[in-house]
Amino acid sequence: MDERPIGIFDSGLGGLTAAGELARLLPSEHIIYFGDTGRVPYGSRSKETILKYANQDVAFLKSFDLKAIVIACGTVSTVAIEQLKMQNDLPIVGVVEPAAMMAAKVTQNGKVGLIGTSASVNSGAYEKVIASVSLDINVTAQACPLLVPLIEAGRVHEGDCVTETVLSEYLEPMKKAQVDTLVLGCTHYPLLKGMIAKQMGDHVTLIDTGEECAKHVAILLKEQDLLTSHTQTEGKRQYFVSDAPEGFVRTASFFLGEQIEDAVERVDIDTYQFD
Amino acid sequence: MDERPIGIFDSGLGGLTAAGELARLLPSEHIIYFGDTGRVPYGSRSKETILKYANQDVAFLKSFDLKAIVIACGTVSTVAIEQLKMQNDLPIVGVVEPAAMMAAKVTQNGKVGLIGTSASVNSGAYEKVIASVSLDINVTAQACPLLVPLIEAGRVHEGDCVTETVLSEYLEPMKKAQVDTLVLGCTHYPLLKGMIAKQMGDHVTLIDTGEECAKHVAILLKEQDLLTSHTQTEGKRQYFVSDAPEGFVRTASFFLGEQIEDAVERVDIDTYQFD
Repeated sequence: MDERPIGIFDSGLGGLTAAGELARLLPSEHIIYFGDTGRVPYGSRSKETILKYANQDVAFLKSFDLKAIVIACGTVSTVAIEQLKMQNDLPIVGVVEPAAMMAAKVTQNGKVGLIGTSASVNSGAYEKVIASVSLDINVTAQACPLLVPLIEAGRVHEGDCVTETVLSEYLEPMKKAQVDTLVLGCTHYPLLKGMIAKQMGDHVTLIDTGEECAKHVAILLKEQDLLTSHTQTEGKRQYFVSDAPEGFVRTASFFLGEQIEDAVERVDIDTYQFD
Repeated sequence: MDERPIGIFDSGLGGLTAAGELARLLPSEHIIYFGDTGRVPYGSRSKETILKYANQDVAFLKSFDLKAIVIACGTVSTVAIEQLKMQNDLPIVGVVEPAAMMAAKVTQNGKVGLIGTSASVNSGAYEKVIASVSLDINVTAQACPLLVPLIEAGRVHEGDCVTETVLSEYLEPMKKAQVDTLVLGCTHYPLLKGMIAKQMGDHVTLIDTGEECAKHVAILLKEQDLLTSHTQTEGKRQYFVSDAPEGFVRTASFFLGEQIEDAVERVDIDTYQFD
């Protein structure tokens, strides 16, 4: 048993889709979320800058006494997780490994697709995990730089011809490659799940990285006997952002799928130093 | 005469369109450009964060002995310029005032349109300058959060149905209001000038904020006798960015309209403090 909170962070608010999955699976856990809204997005930045920001995000979360850290950011999970694991002495779970393992497990024809930010796709991180399971699985990857801006502009509804057109361009290589499994490699993308499913067809399994990550965290905490003993009460939720918190509740509810009642605080993230 | 360099900064690389105009008008001047590529975009952030970042950008530029600073960022020019002018003892020129003055001057029917980032549009800065010229001019403003991502994805060519569709939605209120003058309130937008001109029609005058700003700087330096005396040689160009410089030359050439031969250096912008 371990009553300490779980820390979870993302470059912005997209990671709330993963935080929501975590809260649904582990409703009694105390969860602390940090969104780096003052420096979002990470996906188009260099490896060096992503590493620096991720280190500061972890340094902030570690100002709490945590039992685990969840990286709800596809970009950080692909680019920085190895270094973060080496430099920190608590369990750190990203969104890549659980999703890549699941994709390798469910594909029938050995053809897996991956969509994500430029940094995630260029890192080759999904391919590496999938290759560790089987060398016979082929991965077709596509960077989708316009999806996050479109989602953040609220253009997530079926029939939005701009989002449908952009999506169909990005998904074209997936269809050509005849993938039967598609990893949604960015925590924003679950908001387009319906549109993506429609374009890819019923025979393609969509892997939601936030959902797989949350399942993995639940198993890990159970195995290591780190779950809370307060199973009858709802866990505390705390939210922190690096830009002004105004407007957070509205945007957060969009990603979380439910209204947030809890307070949100601002953090001066660039004052958190790392070694 | 003044041989010191002119400093110019933007949240990213869009401001290079203004830097290019400045270099064309004042080819002999030494120009130092800073693009905050590690924290771009500014337009969706809070006033507090924009002020903090803008102060750090100016603090970095002032590490050189400059004769003037140009704010080639629509967002900073609308949100932070008054504070920056008060806190600094050298001429600071933004993109709002020259463009707003020009719009007030050229409109025939008193109906001016403005497109820009959310922060620029919400600030009301253009309206304020225009009202100082005439209270009879009506301004129709529209935030266009998807234009910068579309431009940065390279979707700037006529016939791109996604950009055309998004533009036509954003320009609809301008057409309805029958504006005869449209301010392109973001230094990225000149790359869409052709598409915007086509949609708005020949009778609408487009105001390029970078171009107006560069003209204003040239007049100001001449009036205050601050131009360089080395009029026969080409001025030095220096480029600084806050993210990794890789890829800068390619992207910069896209905005600048010509190939960059000069070196580009990285700056740790969050280490620049202000009072």
